[in-house]
Amino acid sequence: MFDSMKIEHRLDKAAFKEMEHKLREDLLDAQAELIAGKARSILVLLNGADGTGKGAVLNQLYGWLDARKLVTLTYEKPTDEERARPRMWRYWRDMPARGEIGIVLGSWYHHVLVQHVTGAEDRAHFLAHLEAINRFEQMLWREGVVLLKLWLAMDPAKARSVLASLDEKRDERPVVREWGEIRGGKQRRRLDEAAAEAFRLTSTIEAPWTVIPASDTHYRDAMVGEVMLDTLHRANQAGLKAENASPVPPASSLPVPSLLAGLDYTRTLDEAAYRSAIETQQKRITRLTAGPKFRKGGLICVFEGSDAAGKSSTIMRLREALDPRCFRVHPISAPTDEERARPYLWRFWRSIPRRGHVAVFDRSWYGRVLVERVEGFASEADWRRAYGEINDFEHQLTEDGYVIAKFWLAITPEEQARRFEERERVAYKRFKLTPEDWRNREKWPLYDAAVTDMVDRTSTFYAPWTLVEAESKKWARVKVLTSIADRLEGAAEARTARAD
Amino acid sequence: MFDSMKIEHRLDKAAFKEMEHKLREDLLDAQAELIAGKARSILVLLNGADGTGKGAVLNQLYGWLDARKLVTLTYEKPTDEERARPRMWRYWRDMPARGEIGIVLGSWYHHVLVQHVTGAEDRAHFLAHLEAINRFEQMLWREGVVLLKLWLAMDPAKARSVLASLDEKRDERPVVREWGEIRGGKQRRRLDEAAAEAFRLTSTIEAPWTVIPASDTHYRDAMVGEVMLDTLHRANQAGLKAENASPVPPASSLPVPSLLAGLDYTRTLDEAAYRSAIETQQKRITRLTAGPKFRKGGLICVFEGSDAAGKSSTIMRLREALDPRCFRVHPISAPTDEERARPYLWRFWRSIPRRGHVAVFDRSWYGRVLVERVEGFASEADWRRAYGEINDFEHQLTEDGYVIAKFWLAITPEEQARRFEERERVAYKRFKLTPEDWRNREKWPLYDAAVTDMVDRTSTFYAPWTLVEAESKKWARVKVLTSIADRLEGAAEARTARAD
Repeated sequence: MFDSMKIEHRLDKAAFKEMEHKLREDLLDAQAELIAGKARSILVLLNGADGTGKGAVLNQLYGWLDARKLVTLTYEKPTDEERARPRMWRYWRDMPARGEIGIVLGSWYHHVLVQHVTGAEDRAHFLAHLEAINRFEQMLWREGVVLLKLWLAMDPAKARSVLASLDEKRDERPVVREWGEIRGGKQRRRLDEAAAEAFRLTSTIEAPWTVIPASDTHYRDAMVGEVMLDTLHRANQAGLKAENASPVPPASSLPVPSLLAGLDYTRTLDEAAYRSAIETQQKRITRLTAGPKFRKGGLICVFEGSDAAGKSSTIMRLREALDPRCFRVHPISAPTDEERARPYLWRFWRSIPRRGHVAVFDRSWYGRVLVERVEGFASEADWRRAYGEINDFEHQLTEDGYVIAKFWLAITPEEQARRFEERERVAYKRFKLTPEDWRNREKWPLYDAAVTDMVDRTSTFYAPWTLVEAESKKWARVKVLTSIADRLEGAAEARTARAD
Repeated sequence: MFDSMKIEHRLDKAAFKEMEHKLREDLLDAQAELIAGKARSILVLLNGADGTGKGAVLNQLYGWLDARKLVTLTYEKPTDEERARPRMWRYWRDMPARGEIGIVLGSWYHHVLVQHVTGAEDRAHFLAHLEAINRFEQMLWREGVVLLKLWLAMDPAKARSVLASLDEKRDERPVVREWGEIRGGKQRRRLDEAAAEAFRLTSTIEAPWTVIPASDTHYRDAMVGEVMLDTLHRANQAGLKAENASPVPPASSLPVPSLLAGLDYTRTLDEAAYRSAIETQQKRITRLTAGPKFRKGGLICVFEGSDAAGKSSTIMRLREALDPRCFRVHPISAPTDEERARPYLWRFWRSIPRRGHVAVFDRSWYGRVLVERVEGFASEADWRRAYGEINDFEHQLTEDGYVIAKFWLAITPEEQARRFEERERVAYKRFKLTPEDWRNREKWPLYDAAVTDMVDRTSTFYAPWTLVEAESKKWARVKVLTSIADRLEGAAEARTARAD
């Protein structure tokens, strides 16, 4: 592995004890600032081959830090609930809150390294995984999660002998064994090589690797303490987020045509055609979501649109076609405090359905580039980087077999006014209307521009937007259901083609 | 089943449409009040044999109510994460927030009925389950969860023919089938009988059953709408909680001796005895938690005690004995808003470990009868009923194989003052001390009484309290670890005895 690891790194007990007292004070001070600041969290990825002392380092960190804001996050063989969702879901579900430190055993590098070292995945996949990890870690950093990535390094022969002596006393002291899949000396050497390559490709300014010489326990612990302290300082730095936000591309001065203005709002359907078309499309959706093929993927629908554009009643038509046990609607409004304490996408990852299920988001992660942009709740740097982060998020889902169908339901301002007035007249529709809805109409042109940008930047080949002329509710419902059925059919055909 | 069900219940379409308009208005008004009030939630348990129209009733409720505050909760075959925890965990994890309505398919009655009807469990178990359900539902009611328990009733022959015609078109309309375990006409009849018995035994004032004649769809839907409205009204009633709280037993005028005053605070250990004893007990704990036997249960430790009594450092000694991947500490402080929006015990159910794991609660559900009682955060009626609810909670856990070890770490006020002063002097201990800690000392006698009551009322044979003289930290740590090892050993022996 690293040449410098071959040199002996030692620290004697007296020197260690001398530095430890001050280190502990500094760590607790810095952690107190992290807790009080409630602005950032830290994830310590504690990696290393078996026998290098992960368990001991973990206990040492607990000994030094305020344990009430420390949490150990461990990932072994995935549970069936985890297997039924995209690979990164298990890491998202445990994401610590701002102010907390999570120590991760079995990080997202583990699986990637195992697959590569055992030959289950080729080099191209290995590199693609590392590239995806880089983008993920960059996003975490910008969302206030500071990473400390540790690799405990030890000569393989020494690690083997440590492990053997630990195993002898396994009844007396717990041993953390994580790499059961890695067998024999050759794979063990390949693990070191693969780890070195991973460090090279994923040591970024935002999330650098630190290799810890782990043969001497005092040296190891002292170094871990020092980089932990450094990480706490980085997390406590003011202005960290703004500084490191992605550069904002300058706005063009050319006039941008509105996508919404270009729609044909006269489209409609008569009652008979509507009834027949809805029934046909509902039956298609029932059929396409009932088969075993569908259980290999899942369906995620995103509904965005102006107020009163008909989202709820369209979702109702979709509901009728689906088994209620596999269908869930997530209405998105203000985040809870648990959600606010974590990266933006956490609240959506919470609701990602298991395979074979359907989730509808009634408003969605696009809030950041719509309402948060227009109302100024997010800084320009934040909503601009969101396009790329959302594309990454949706890419992960589609790579995992999910179909993503995104709809913007469009009506004219005049039609909206008519519908608002109707809501005021009809008692049982009144609950849907708030004074804020009338006020929001003033921002129509701003939303128009935001929608154009959003569709331009996030309509990908794997998760395209469908703009829906919703002036006629009947037209809109049929168009949405037809589009969902078409997408499901396309995914089923692609799956069959791949299987042949 | 019920004789009245043999009479035909009909409502023609015109009469239904006439009443529906008003019903819908009233439902939306009442639901708007529920949402605005944020005081209570509703769980609609939608039960009935297959073919009686559960899916249709669900869609009808979605058509009438504001779908953004409705959520469908469905329970089929448990996932492995659910199987790894007590039976009721799956219902707790989905508990809706105040203001929301959850519609439950596959409620907690389902499993109990199936076990009884198929003969997997005898009548005594059936009755015991129903009794436990009664206590559970009473607790939910008092915690602000209003239950609507529906049973869709239909002549078995008719239900069978409905199901057959639905099955023919299964590709076109989803069918909710839940009772796959019930086979043949005889078991089907026994299901009706068992359901009738369950209604009789679990129709309480807090959570009555409503049987819905389901042969005529208009009659069925109208009746569901009416009881739904009635339930919303019940949930919106002011003062509901206080009225129905359990009667408060009058306080005795006799002097109550303090349990804490009776402890021998001079107990201590010398360094050599301490080192040897701690190591012995840690090894016992490592051994007792490593075997396959332990994986059939789990360990839940509760640490309560005065400030500075030494909880954290004791927990650290336990941590050293355990595999970090199976061990988690839950420090309990102020609840989040998601926790506040749900029944009191929800935040603890969230953290119940899977079998084979160890969870430590650093402060716990006893907060209600300690700090909330002393500070007046909970009403007297609320903290008094908590004793019984906590006993039920812990009983469920131990019935499921968990060992519960509860510790009160006791020090004298003088020792506490010494430790506070030390914390002020030593920099890295300072983070643990707040001005509030000094103020809390004034309430020492109140805590003393609260602890005596708590131990009297919640030290059960299945989850006893251990009072720990903690004036000497060494004594306390050894006593706690010894007690945990003894409890684990006792559980392992009991398991072996049962297996023989």
